[in-house]
Amino acid sequence: MTFFSQPEIEPTDAVKFAEFQPLIDKYNREKWDQMERFDPEFYRLCQEKIPSAAELDSEPINARVFVTEPGLLSDSEREIVNELTIDDLLRKQLSRELTAEQIARAYIKSAIIAQFATNCVMQFLIPSALERAKELDEYLREHGELLGPMHGIPISLKEQMGYEGQPTTASYVSLIENVVKKSTVSNQIFYKLGGVYHARTSQPQTIMHLDTWNNIIGRTRNPCCTRLSPGGSSGGESAMVAMHGSAIGIGSDIGGSVRCPAAFTNLFGLKPTTKRLSSMNGVSGSKGQESIPSTEGPVARSIEEIEHYMNVYINQGKPWTYDPTSLPIPWEIAATAGSKPRIGILYTDNLVTPYPAIKRAMTQIAQHLEPSFHIIDLSDAWFTEQEMLSIYSTNLSLYTVDGNKSQLEVLLPSGEPLLPLTKHFLNFGGGKELSVYENRKLNILRDTARLSIFEKFFSRDAPASLQLDFILSPANVAPAEIPGNSKYWGYTSLWNLTDYPNVVFPTPCKQDPQQDILISESLNKNEFEKMVWYKQDGTINYNPTDYTGAPVALQLTGMRFQDEKIVSAVKKICQILDISRR
Amino acid sequence: MTFFSQPEIEPTDAVKFAEFQPLIDKYNREKWDQMERFDPEFYRLCQEKIPSAAELDSEPINARVFVTEPGLLSDSEREIVNELTIDDLLRKQLSRELTAEQIARAYIKSAIIAQFATNCVMQFLIPSALERAKELDEYLREHGELLGPMHGIPISLKEQMGYEGQPTTASYVSLIENVVKKSTVSNQIFYKLGGVYHARTSQPQTIMHLDTWNNIIGRTRNPCCTRLSPGGSSGGESAMVAMHGSAIGIGSDIGGSVRCPAAFTNLFGLKPTTKRLSSMNGVSGSKGQESIPSTEGPVARSIEEIEHYMNVYINQGKPWTYDPTSLPIPWEIAATAGSKPRIGILYTDNLVTPYPAIKRAMTQIAQHLEPSFHIIDLSDAWFTEQEMLSIYSTNLSLYTVDGNKSQLEVLLPSGEPLLPLTKHFLNFGGGKELSVYENRKLNILRDTARLSIFEKFFSRDAPASLQLDFILSPANVAPAEIPGNSKYWGYTSLWNLTDYPNVVFPTPCKQDPQQDILISESLNKNEFEKMVWYKQDGTINYNPTDYTGAPVALQLTGMRFQDEKIVSAVKKICQILDISRR
Repeated sequence: MTFFSQPEIEPTDAVKFAEFQPLIDKYNREKWDQMERFDPEFYRLCQEKIPSAAELDSEPINARVFVTEPGLLSDSEREIVNELTIDDLLRKQLSRELTAEQIARAYIKSAIIAQFATNCVMQFLIPSALERAKELDEYLREHGELLGPMHGIPISLKEQMGYEGQPTTASYVSLIENVVKKSTVSNQIFYKLGGVYHARTSQPQTIMHLDTWNNIIGRTRNPCCTRLSPGGSSGGESAMVAMHGSAIGIGSDIGGSVRCPAAFTNLFGLKPTTKRLSSMNGVSGSKGQESIPSTEGPVARSIEEIEHYMNVYINQGKPWTYDPTSLPIPWEIAATAGSKPRIGILYTDNLVTPYPAIKRAMTQIAQHLEPSFHIIDLSDAWFTEQEMLSIYSTNLSLYTVDGNKSQLEVLLPSGEPLLPLTKHFLNFGGGKELSVYENRKLNILRDTARLSIFEKFFSRDAPASLQLDFILSPANVAPAEIPGNSKYWGYTSLWNLTDYPNVVFPTPCKQDPQQDILISESLNKNEFEKMVWYKQDGTINYNPTDYTGAPVALQLTGMRFQDEKIVSAVKKICQILDISRR
Repeated sequence: MTFFSQPEIEPTDAVKFAEFQPLIDKYNREKWDQMERFDPEFYRLCQEKIPSAAELDSEPINARVFVTEPGLLSDSEREIVNELTIDDLLRKQLSRELTAEQIARAYIKSAIIAQFATNCVMQFLIPSALERAKELDEYLREHGELLGPMHGIPISLKEQMGYEGQPTTASYVSLIENVVKKSTVSNQIFYKLGGVYHARTSQPQTIMHLDTWNNIIGRTRNPCCTRLSPGGSSGGESAMVAMHGSAIGIGSDIGGSVRCPAAFTNLFGLKPTTKRLSSMNGVSGSKGQESIPSTEGPVARSIEEIEHYMNVYINQGKPWTYDPTSLPIPWEIAATAGSKPRIGILYTDNLVTPYPAIKRAMTQIAQHLEPSFHIIDLSDAWFTEQEMLSIYSTNLSLYTVDGNKSQLEVLLPSGEPLLPLTKHFLNFGGGKELSVYENRKLNILRDTARLSIFEKFFSRDAPASLQLDFILSPANVAPAEIPGNSKYWGYTSLWNLTDYPNVVFPTPCKQDPQQDILISESLNKNEFEKMVWYKQDGTINYNPTDYTGAPVALQLTGMRFQDEKIVSAVKKICQILDISRR
């Protein structure tokens, strides 16, 4: 099978698209108007202090300083958004040191900065967030207790999540006026637990890029280095949370869409086992597709906040009381990773060699973890290049198995142009429509891969030298990528295909142009590696300085339904490596 | 859409099929040889005392008397197979009153009687079962304890379940020599828990009839009334368990295949929420299909034995340690149905009116349950006929959505003739091949139906007058059916489409030709009702005496994952209605 030939699909219809332009303009104007109305003085200060879009797009600017350093936010605002954990915010409200309104105002300001610096917001919800915060303060005054374990916590929402009474576009221009009747189960749950929603964040066209660019708001930037991509598809979330524009964010992941953005922006991201969180009432172009199920997942600044999210969502939110497909499996609070857990290290998936910074980080970290974990090198035990080619081809084909009809159904009505990474995605599996029978055969290959991972590495019948608790692997080929460059999904999408849960976490390593130079001998040069490593003219496409400022993240995978154990292990790793809250 | 037009598919190839005949003969000869070798004297006695196949096929013979009454089995054998529960058998082995070998020998005899009377066996495993029983006795002598909670319990297996080293045909002639490498997870689990496997039972061609007839062994009969069908597709199991030929049986259900046979033979059957039991290593013609997932489920003589099965399988067997798709949800032993649970009664699904005996049984039982349960009539709240037409059409279309390619792939190589109910099934959804895109649209309709049931009846947001714990409904349009007549799947398949768990249980009622006469005014006369109730010439097809001797069973449904609560409620119902072990 040949992937990535030029796709024949070109639904762009400039005339039709032009009709939508006024709606797009109105959609965006409302956002900027909300920002300005909230605090005109602050708005002008942001305009003045934050570099222009053109400058941000071309320079390696660390945009987080606009939030962490004095200049735009007051000391108390900076304390709220930078220093205080979710636990701190809850405690300080209970002790009356802070009000929900103060918290909301501080976070709305940092979210406005985030929007200026990274263009991560689809829609602001500032008036309703302020109203909600006041109600929560009133509730606390009246009842002497918090409404719930998210009382007054500003949570950002990936925009594709249905929001009652608001347009939910999922970044499809055709859905720009798609006002939905029902909020997602997650929105309903966190609302009941006291959450404050102030911003809905960007996702790429089709929600199927490991990058974030759409025809409604344009491109989102990486806060760590603005000329780089924040990852995707939950790139609005990663930019927002990394800018401290929300305390925690809700993303979703069908091929890496929580983990890639978390990795690119120096954050934590969890893709849980599917059906532990509900995805009900989300809008997407792959409804009814179940060969590779999507899942929601949190993007956060610490592993403890990921744990808090999962614990209160599942144990108090009980998604199965809203969504009959959600699993009634409690979040096990006391889960531990065991005394000396066994971690298999996967330096390469044998298909596409990761960039040098990734390997350097893994080698260093393996050494540091050695005293507390059994570290097992998976180089000999992992699937061969041929096996991986088959697994990844199955993976890609399943994403486009309907010949992209479901996607085109939402793309075509607006005539919006197809962005480069949309064409790339629509051409997965050659863009070929397969039959239901062929889809089933691919499902069987998927199940075989899942079982094979289980039997090779995790089950009690696995070789004694393996029998792993976890697999540590790259989160991506590259540290944060150049916009438009994230074409290989394998390091994350394998775990969607096979539905194993994982956490992406930041490491102490960053791209270092001096150290992270290429050793070309190690390349396998199959078509996917060529796509990543080579230019059209056959010369190497890797330039160490392109990634300056980019963080290196890794991914820890465990057995299905052992999400708690993975979170616990990442807590332990963070202690050992001294990885503090971002 | 029009269903049940004549199908165009006719893969029969008499020449090809003739080549398989010697293999079929050999397959069956081995079975009869095993039976005779086990005890030639007993074999001859069976030949002598049990009526001929022709007589059994045409007369309403209660075949259970060959096992329950003196004549073929000794008093002690009859005590073992008729009187002793699984708990009793375990206790009496531990106290050395019985050996596993004695139990195995008694059950092998009753299974041989079952085969003579009902033709329910595909393959006997007599030598290995006896060897296994002796090993278990040895184990008990040596260790002073039972191997596990199925120690020495004879369990029958639906033949499509892979059995290591044995041919596993799933009733496809083309698979007559398909020796498999791996047993199902269930077989592995119950083996570890001490189970003894002596017989593998019949299923219909394609495993997709609510009846049991295939081209390898022919037709299986109903023990309650041999001229009737034992139901299907686990009809070999229901015949075997109803004949007391095994202590408990493992069936599987994708449209009613555990529940219909349990209902037709006066037994208990559980279709659990999918993924609570593993189906791994089963053979079927719908691999990779996941729009309507199949599940295994027990067929038993008491609800307590269903509970024992689930408890030990899940809590001790831990299927998720074999099969990464199995859910690690423990079986809650102390589950109760609540103090005064709310049962909604569904007299008709508004699509096909059940036969009079069913309505009579439901009315009587509702009265008896009234003091202990809140009984709510669902006549006004249920889906309309139009809504049900849409749901059932979705259901049928999803069974054949691949244009039957998966089935034909296994049917064609042998040229075996298509049986009438195979043609009926292959013509579900008009036998039309749909696209992946269309399959997804049907998945969305399925999800809508599932959610609608949840929100209408079960969730806390349901109207206060509803908010049910359970729904009590017919298990089938008819009590046990005339062979070839089970064409409407709706009463069971709705719960596969939407994946709600249910238990089918016997009632004290039987078909009564005097009382159960037709009141034709109540018929809706849509195409499905016409199919069930009318002959081709437009006259009524219901004759009360056809069903003389047939038991009436009902079906109790609950929320997803509340299997335990349903089992608990059926226990309570059995106490109230005085429904003892069969």
